Amino acid sequence: MIQCKNVLVLYVGGTIGMQRNEHGVYVPVPNALFQKIKDSDMHDFSLENHLPLNLRHDELVLPLFGSTAVVYKIEEYKVLLDSSNMSTEDWIRISKDIEKNYYKFDGFVVLHGTDTLAFTASVLSFMLQNLQKPVIITGSQIPIFETRSDAKDNFLASLIFAGCYDIPEVCVCFANKLLRGNRTTKISSNLLNAFDSPNYHHLGNAGIEIRLHQHYIRKKSSSNGYFAVNTSLNCNVGTLTFFPTITSSQLESFLKPPTEGLVLQTYGAGNIPSNNIKILQEAVNRGVIIVNVSQCSKGAVCADYEAGKKLEEIGIISGCDMTSEAALTKLIFVLGQPGTYESRVKMLKLNLCGEVTTDEANSNYL
Amino acid sequence: MIQCKNVLVLYVGGTIGMQRNEHGVYVPVPNALFQKIKDSDMHDFSLENHLPLNLRHDELVLPLFGSTAVVYKIEEYKVLLDSSNMSTEDWIRISKDIEKNYYKFDGFVVLHGTDTLAFTASVLSFMLQNLQKPVIITGSQIPIFETRSDAKDNFLASLIFAGCYDIPEVCVCFANKLLRGNRTTKISSNLLNAFDSPNYHHLGNAGIEIRLHQHYIRKKSSSNGYFAVNTSLNCNVGTLTFFPTITSSQLESFLKPPTEGLVLQTYGAGNIPSNNIKILQEAVNRGVIIVNVSQCSKGAVCADYEAGKKLEEIGIISGCDMTSEAALTKLIFVLGQPGTYESRVKMLKLNLCGEVTTDEANSNYL
Amino acid sequence: MIQCKNVLVLYVGGTIGMQRNEHGVYVPVPNALFQKIKDSDMHDFSLENHLPLNLRHDELVLPLFGSTAVVYKIEEYKVLLDSSNMSTEDWIRISKDIEKNYYKFDGFVVLHGTDTLAFTASVLSFMLQNLQKPVIITGSQIPIFETRSDAKDNFLASLIFAGCYDIPEVCVCFANKLLRGNRTTKISSNLLNAFDSPNYHHLGNAGIEIRLHQHYIRKKSSSNGYFAVNTSLNCNVGTLTFFPTITSSQLESFLKPPTEGLVLQTYGAGNIPSNNIKILQEAVNRGVIIVNVSQCSKGAVCADYEAGKKLEEIGIISGCDMTSEAALTKLIFVLGQPGTYESRVKMLKLNLCGEVTTDEANSNYL
Amino acid sequence: MIQCKNVLVLYVGGTIGMQRNEHGVYVPVPNALFQKIKDSDMHDFSLENHLPLNLRHDELVLPLFGSTAVVYKIEEYKVLLDSSNMSTEDWIRISKDIEKNYYKFDGFVVLHGTDTLAFTASVLSFMLQNLQKPVIITGSQIPIFETRSDAKDNFLASLIFAGCYDIPEVCVCFANKLLRGNRTTKISSNLLNAFDSPNYHHLGNAGIEIRLHQHYIRKKSSSNGYFAVNTSLNCNVGTLTFFPTITSSQLESFLKPPTEGLVLQTYGAGNIPSNNIKILQEAVNRGVIIVNVSQCSKGAVCADYEAGKKLEEIGIISGCDMTSEAALTKLIFVLGQPGTYESRVKMLKLNLCGEVTTDEANSNYL
Repeated sequence: MIQCKNVLVLYVGGTIGMQRNEHGVYVPVPNALFQKIKDSDMHDFSLENHLPLNLRHDELVLPLFGSTAVVYKIEEYKVLLDSSNMSTEDWIRISKDIEKNYYKFDGFVVLHGTDTLAFTASVLSFMLQNLQKPVIITGSQIPIFETRSDAKDNFLASLIFAGCYDIPEVCVCFANKLLRGNRTTKISSNLLNAFDSPNYHHLGNAGIEIRLHQHYIRKKSSSNGYFAVNTSLNCNVGTLTFFPTITSSQLESFLKPPTEGLVLQTYGAGNIPSNNIKILQEAVNRGVIIVNVSQCSKGAVCADYEAGKKLEEIGIISGCDMTSEAALTKLIFVLGQPGTYESRVKMLKLNLCGEVTTDEANSNYL
Repeated sequence: MIQCKNVLVLYVGGTIGMQRNEHGVYVPVPNALFQKIKDSDMHDFSLENHLPLNLRHDELVLPLFGSTAVVYKIEEYKVLLDSSNMSTEDWIRISKDIEKNYYKFDGFVVLHGTDTLAFTASVLSFMLQNLQKPVIITGSQIPIFETRSDAKDNFLASLIFAGCYDIPEVCVCFANKLLRGNRTTKISSNLLNAFDSPNYHHLGNAGIEIRLHQHYIRKKSSSNGYFAVNTSLNCNVGTLTFFPTITSSQLESFLKPPTEGLVLQTYGAGNIPSNNIKILQEAVNRGVIIVNVSQCSKGAVCADYEAGKKLEEIGIISGCDMTSEAALTKLIFVLGQPGTYESRVKMLKLNLCGEVTTDEANSNYL
Repeated sequence: MIQCKNVLVLYVGGTIGMQRNEHGVYVPVPNALFQKIKDSDMHDFSLENHLPLNLRHDELVLPLFGSTAVVYKIEEYKVLLDSSNMSTEDWIRISKDIEKNYYKFDGFVVLHGTDTLAFTASVLSFMLQNLQKPVIITGSQIPIFETRSDAKDNFLASLIFAGCYDIPEVCVCFANKLLRGNRTTKISSNLLNAFDSPNYHHLGNAGIEIRLHQHYIRKKSSSNGYFAVNTSLNCNVGTLTFFPTITSSQLESFLKPPTEGLVLQTYGAGNIPSNNIKILQEAVNRGVIIVNVSQCSKGAVCADYEAGKKLEEIGIISGCDMTSEAALTKLIFVLGQPGTYESRVKMLKLNLCGEVTTDEANSNYL
Repeated sequence: MIQCKNVLVLYVGGTIGMQRNEHGVYVPVPNALFQKIKDSDMHDFSLENHLPLNLRHDELVLPLFGSTAVVYKIEEYKVLLDSSNMSTEDWIRISKDIEKNYYKFDGFVVLHGTDTLAFTASVLSFMLQNLQKPVIITGSQIPIFETRSDAKDNFLASLIFAGCYDIPEVCVCFANKLLRGNRTTKISSNLLNAFDSPNYHHLGNAGIEIRLHQHYIRKKSSSNGYFAVNTSLNCNVGTLTFFPTITSSQLESFLKPPTEGLVLQTYGAGNIPSNNIKILQEAVNRGVIIVNVSQCSKGAVCADYEAGKKLEEIGIISGCDMTSEAALTKLIFVLGQPGTYESRVKMLKLNLCGEVTTDEANSNYL
């Protein structure tokens, strides 16, 4: 007996759907992806008229995965987005598209450029509240129209994770790995193995078999309310990476109005040049919310150290083991919420949806 | 027959020499390291009066390594430097201390805090021109005064590399790995294995045996002049990491005078939001030198892509696979040199001392 | 207020306690380790007479770890064992020494040669039944008497894990990692990072801080009886690695009496040359118990495949993701127990103490 | 101007060409692969009649790679071989098929099962003497007929390496890595990333771009003769893995006639139980050639240690950092050559085609 699962694919943009133009340059090509997929073995036409499927003309269906037929519909954005240019409006649109279709589908796949994919995955994890279904974000390093390409592997595995598994999370699926969305970062500009979650265990892998690491996947909440999309964002924020020779003026330029929040990428376990502390304190006093994360790809900011302690004392929030992508988008989200300075600081310190390690037992960074 | 090699240790500062004060906080303790080492098995008192050594009171000697006696002298900085606060003056001082002692010693070890160690290693590689002797920079994640510590392992391996091997490079030695200094970055705030060179092969390892990967070590130059220290630095520079929601005003604040050079940490293979290009172009037209490196820990900026091409067209320099530490310090160095805008741009594009991959055969990033 | 924890160290043998003899060859040196440790900073003489410690002359004490004083006693084996020569008698002796002292100490450290360390760790995990205290096995790649050595790091971390943490398991501690004993294998003959557990998550790490990954550590059993040492072993067993050109006669020689059990290291997911199946079937029919594990360092034997299915059909037991070290010692243990062929087969298929993945949620091999 | 390169594909067998039969079991399906490929985007029908190609009906052509058209012909073995059952006859057949076609093609791809792929790659490297063209061996963990599969990626990258690059070596291409054939081993039974060369640097990678690590690829020999296939093999050999409780009788059974050569997988850096030495010495005295390799996946057997020294003294040959796959097939090859015991021992100690590290500069194992 065939079981049918429905997945909505939001094709937002990115390398995955690009083709070379007459100058040999990759550009997005509208209205080409659907047909490319339909003509590939990612669509099983023998199932098209199979009861209980009865596909509509804009639906596709994967070959059976066990006894499950994953039926999917590709919704292509009219203007395909360039990953480098993603804005809060784009994030809001994606989240609203999921909201609109939330009860009609079993899972969601977002096809996205790789450059800011980790930011989108992070911010969606905050915006999609009480999410009980999989939202899998993917893309590719090489377009699906090229013979040698990682696009099909990434798209196919994403559809399977979205359609066949119970994963109440925003995830990134790339290069046979399933990662928590707000833990991911792009680690390579050249390799197909382009994403990782340095401070959190992988959620699953696609080898000969598909495997989930259940222990690491968020539990479905039973009590805390209905799915809702929260689109209140505030982009008066920034990310500043410390470097030797940084001047007061450079630091101040990232703290002055209209800035309401700043992510500091500090040295090691959270250290900064001591002559910058006064400037930061003044900003905190003015109500700027500052989050401290590490420049190191692995590990956490730690309040146990002198420097970290001093920063906490003046009201800078430890980002612990958050990625800078998660820290920035969390700030954008939290600053968008109603409330006082204190309530926002409190919210920032909470583990909202798995983006930060509060329970040491689950820590993966040491 | 014992062969004697002399190593100068510059103890600049850092966690390696710290102790907890009465509040339980780590602080640098002056004039304690020498005695600690002298009382440890890193000093072989049985060799003290051994001819031809005849140690002076301020010299120490490792137990024989094969038939080599590594005699070393620790020069402790009067004011121990905090790694987070390192300035160009500190870099100049270290380089001058090496210059002063260059012909008196066979190799050099710099004990340094880990937070900005990769910056110091990078800048020294540019400043120490025609270097024909090993300069090994190390430190530790845990002080040498703690029972459990990585300090002895790191210090000892550094002394052996500096004293017993022919390595005409500035290197970082950490956690049993020898890395090219201007390729290193701090990868973990918590682990003892805290450094790596993501885009370049390790130069050596300390396992049961010490091994060098000779192919990757720079060849001794035979012809191009004498060792010299170049201390002309220009710190009107900055590093800016792109993020979604970045505003023109944020970007401009890092480009306005007195800024003469800027490292951009861009997305993926070198992409930025397209609405920032005009601002960058204006800065280039004003004479600001801009270098493009990737936010990804592995891989290179690539001019083959549309976005990269556009950036090159407006005069932004591809940093290829340089670390952001190397790119910033190279900019500081090149802007300090006499010459025209064009000559500096040309210099920035050169592989000065192994910091960037120009010969694909040696590429390690793909 | 100082809390005192007592650890018994069984110094069984191995590289850790060796010194070069007059021919430059490493040999074990009796009665030297205790004094070497006592003279090092692994013994805090300032605590010697500190109440409530009152050390006896054969006891040592680590510098305080937090407020815990780890007091330890080194029991050196009269004849220091060569790791390559370890026999079942040696395993029995170690287990009995732990039994004798079980209630007198809070934890145990075994100093052992690295060559068969993974076998000893595996077999002890089966022999020490209802273990509620840490038994940490360690050693080193370079002797403690050498200046450059991993011995102190390994020994010290092992003492801390054994004395300060609640780990009811036989573990291996090496190169700053804590691993489940019956999941370990020696992965490098040259590097200091010599052990890993390819199919199971690390249990802990020693970075700047000591961290346990609690989720992966076995839970203390509350109900199933008292600690007991089971020394019934049967060494009529073997391990045979398949290779092309293997002959019937070679296979038979490992199956003929007195052989009662055999570990097969098969290709990939559990495949063997088909002409060997009849011989195996005959052996099974004679009552030989055969366990199938993979030659691959990562992954499991899988009964889902044709070849695997055929082997299961003729009564060969899938070793799933067990290491060959665990499979062999489990066979030695199970064949030593009273019972019928069927009861032993049943026992072999059980997860006795974490050596095999039965719960997919904890699987680490995919 | 299109440049045409011709590649011969020997489809020998393996998972890559299997399909599920009516019982759900994977079985090889003859005469199906060609059509499957022809219908996929691995064949560019628009190039079929393109001059200068003029494809014959049994030829396929990849879409242009730059300006190169890789034309390939798939020669399917009548009886598709099961990787677990590969014999010396199969190796001879493959080598002769390459010989027959050597001057007609620019490169060769062998589609092979993964289980003994590393053995075949190793033995071919010895048999194909003075090889000046690429021979790329590949396969897949999942059949090409499955929707989710690594087959196309592996096959396509292999064709590109074989057709477009100058690689005078037998290589394994798998999971976007190009590895030296006689350095490979299967590392995972479950993951798609199933092969590695633990003691030798990768030769190339397929990321966004294809990259070769030229320094590691063997140089084309200019002087030492013509390409020739040497099919003299001797399979009176074996591989024996040491384990505690191994008996004299077990060891003897692998040394007695007709055995002429044996690979010992010893502990760590080459150690064995001392009571086995006499038996080995007797075998050596009888003329059995014995090669010592390590059980550890990384590292080398080392004659510097006491145990290793003893083994060398009695005439056992150090396999240094060879894989056991390379050691066994080298033995099979060397024992097949004419000559005396001494000449064979000498040959075994040589680096015949990159299978063993003799030049430390190229060592990757420490």
